[in-house]
Amino acid sequence: MLADLRGVVPERQLLTDPSELDTYACDGLAAYRVRPALVVLADSADQVAATVTACARRGVPFVARGSGTGLSGGALPHAEGVLLVTSRLRTLHEVRPQDQRAVVDPGVINLQVSKAANPHGYYFAPDPSSQQICSIGGNVAENSGGAHCLKYGFTSNHVLSLDVVTPQGEQVTLGTEAPDAPGYDLVGAFVGSEGTLGVATRATVRLTRLPQEVRTVLAGFASTDQAGAATSAIIAAGIVPAAIEIMDALAIEAAEKAVSCGYPAGAGAVLVVELDGSALEVEHEYARVEQICREAGTFEFRMATDAAERAEIWKGRKSAFAAVGRISPDYIVQDGVVPRTALPEVLRRMGEISAERGVRVANVFHAGDGNLHPLVLFDASEEGATERAEEVSGMILDLCIEHGGSITGEHGVGADKARYMPRMFTDDDLDTMQLVRCAFDPEGLANPGKVYPTPRLCGERPRVVQGAHPLTADGVEVF
Amino acid sequence: MLADLRGVVPERQLLTDPSELDTYACDGLAAYRVRPALVVLADSADQVAATVTACARRGVPFVARGSGTGLSGGALPHAEGVLLVTSRLRTLHEVRPQDQRAVVDPGVINLQVSKAANPHGYYFAPDPSSQQICSIGGNVAENSGGAHCLKYGFTSNHVLSLDVVTPQGEQVTLGTEAPDAPGYDLVGAFVGSEGTLGVATRATVRLTRLPQEVRTVLAGFASTDQAGAATSAIIAAGIVPAAIEIMDALAIEAAEKAVSCGYPAGAGAVLVVELDGSALEVEHEYARVEQICREAGTFEFRMATDAAERAEIWKGRKSAFAAVGRISPDYIVQDGVVPRTALPEVLRRMGEISAERGVRVANVFHAGDGNLHPLVLFDASEEGATERAEEVSGMILDLCIEHGGSITGEHGVGADKARYMPRMFTDDDLDTMQLVRCAFDPEGLANPGKVYPTPRLCGERPRVVQGAHPLTADGVEVF
Repeated sequence: MLADLRGVVPERQLLTDPSELDTYACDGLAAYRVRPALVVLADSADQVAATVTACARRGVPFVARGSGTGLSGGALPHAEGVLLVTSRLRTLHEVRPQDQRAVVDPGVINLQVSKAANPHGYYFAPDPSSQQICSIGGNVAENSGGAHCLKYGFTSNHVLSLDVVTPQGEQVTLGTEAPDAPGYDLVGAFVGSEGTLGVATRATVRLTRLPQEVRTVLAGFASTDQAGAATSAIIAAGIVPAAIEIMDALAIEAAEKAVSCGYPAGAGAVLVVELDGSALEVEHEYARVEQICREAGTFEFRMATDAAERAEIWKGRKSAFAAVGRISPDYIVQDGVVPRTALPEVLRRMGEISAERGVRVANVFHAGDGNLHPLVLFDASEEGATERAEEVSGMILDLCIEHGGSITGEHGVGADKARYMPRMFTDDDLDTMQLVRCAFDPEGLANPGKVYPTPRLCGERPRVVQGAHPLTADGVEVF
Repeated sequence: MLADLRGVVPERQLLTDPSELDTYACDGLAAYRVRPALVVLADSADQVAATVTACARRGVPFVARGSGTGLSGGALPHAEGVLLVTSRLRTLHEVRPQDQRAVVDPGVINLQVSKAANPHGYYFAPDPSSQQICSIGGNVAENSGGAHCLKYGFTSNHVLSLDVVTPQGEQVTLGTEAPDAPGYDLVGAFVGSEGTLGVATRATVRLTRLPQEVRTVLAGFASTDQAGAATSAIIAAGIVPAAIEIMDALAIEAAEKAVSCGYPAGAGAVLVVELDGSALEVEHEYARVEQICREAGTFEFRMATDAAERAEIWKGRKSAFAAVGRISPDYIVQDGVVPRTALPEVLRRMGEISAERGVRVANVFHAGDGNLHPLVLFDASEEGATERAEEVSGMILDLCIEHGGSITGEHGVGADKARYMPRMFTDDDLDTMQLVRCAFDPEGLANPGKVYPTPRLCGERPRVVQGAHPLTADGVEVF
């Protein structure tokens, strides 16, 4: 491999030293770590294509990685494979506000796209919490969401065209800049394919007009039930806020300890609602939201009127994941979805499970689209605690599936949830997905072991699965 | 085939009589006609699966058909194949306003979904002009659009899950009711696949909240340039109307002759703008639209304040295609897309081509998303007129591609435009699409000859193409 690449990729962009390789052993899901055999820091689409071509020729697996902020282990390296890092491809080629388009490299940071578009009155709508550091390539791979997906949709709704290197090393263009390109919507299939269909080397994305006005509301409630009822009533009133978030008592406690966000004292739940649009519309919707929250029993209702106050409200919410470290030595960030109307029932059942198993669960969630982020708290130094936390975490996913939901809302399947896929899909459903994977990647070299539980088609032989953790079969060490 | 099916599909649902078969010889693109070998009027998913399984076993091609209103010949039968009609699958299983979902059979008529949802305050947003008769199955196959796509998106944005019979006859479920299902977005790839990946037998669709207020504006301008400038200015002001339509002088003339729609006399172009949303927002946007239109030079500006006046304004626009029959014995409805900012240049060039070739072109278009519907007028009884019209029609598509657009906006590729695909996509791009087609349908039995210009993979041998019209190689008679 090295010999193949030396003519194409400069020596200093090929990492083989074990201590350098270890830097790339995990992504944002640090519970799984694998040292890759080789890291390639590509800085052009041609270098990406040359690397993938070399992998195809020699039957070497490869895993693409952006900024490495993913939470499902989608960029977990392969022990005998190449880790192909696209962070150095970071040219922002074009911002065309008049067509609401930007053309960017995969290594461009999410927030940079908005920063470049802002002076023209536009921004890039998908806003994962990691947007200060995550890259467009990673957003494309994981179909990233964020707090504002409720109104503006996922990455998939904002990508029009992609230049892609296929697992055979061919450079192709999927989609066009015009809406609704003829042929299959391969941009749609590629976005969210978690690195299993190839590597994106350029994206044409849609820009969204900056709203004339933004108002952020913070409402304290006695319980998540009340906050949930307010959420349903807001949506039922025909209002689509930019974001509706709920945090429960445990999450509020953590956030207070970490960032002193000053949320309403004694709240069993807080609701954060962000309204945006024309000033008149926001004014009108704000009045309705206040009325609905009061009817649902809010005991404290505040509005941020400027950017500083808005940031203050968001600080608690955005720090929530990290803040949980203040109240628990270890925790699992779960990511599931249920139909909005099932939220109260699912939260109640989750509370029961938590009580039964003696495992604390903090809840932070995108209430508007039913996307739950339960934080399962544990202390790994306690005998059996990790296993209990993992069990509860799995039970929460089962709960989501039972209620017509999904095992992931925005973090992806990756290495972490492949084993849950058969709970959600039948064998025939999974085989149908494999048809597409195998069509692009018959040798199974693009991010193997991710997304799908076991290789089933392309003539692959089933591998021996050891123990309860199928992932270990791929040589993954679980820490 | 008949023997296989007789146990499963009642005899009266199997048509073999030539006069009955001829009823199904074409869809909405009547220029192409093929008598199918057998018509199956399925009335359950199991009957669809049994028919496709029998086709797969015997190597017989099949074409699925809904209401047959498609404009690209996507449901054109195969002379030696089965035409599988899904119109009898027309149960509306469920309307769940609280989750904004409906579950419907493929034969359910588009408008019926809205009618069922209306009492709950919801509707189904995609609105092709044929919505009184076209079916959800056909909408899914063609990724149908409509005048309101600008704000609400195409069918693809409103389908969450599909039950599908694969070309092997397997029944699988793609997607889930929750947003952003894990795995590849095969719902996205299937919607718009024009019958080449299988047959949908059930769809879970998203319902959209009925707007509080709707206002429809009609503005007369001296030229399409002025109307186009007003369109750009409206979008640049951050307003996203539900629809922005332009008709040019020739289209207005036709509509007046057909339905006496009373558009502004002497207009070189009319602009129809529909605003919807909360009453306050619409009020505010209306004021801005009026101001913008006046600045762009409108000489007559009217607003519909009730449903009757609104219907009056839309009457001219919605009748435009048929109305052209009043000013020309024959015409081709073209469907192309360009970036909105390229509209003035493309219209100017289209005018030049029309003058050079002596072929009249009427223009009716979804200006908001750059989707052109040029109507190329001709008289088939005139020597060489058909060929000249087809040439101009093709030149218009080339013009769209040159300006970064697409060969189809919402009518699909079907039988009609397969030959234009290589002008838009490279061989590698097309091969990548074929990977997916061949993964689902290695024998090439699902709607063969549509979408893709020539079979290229799956080990198919290239067929002999006679003359300039590759379609004739598939036994299609061009009338």
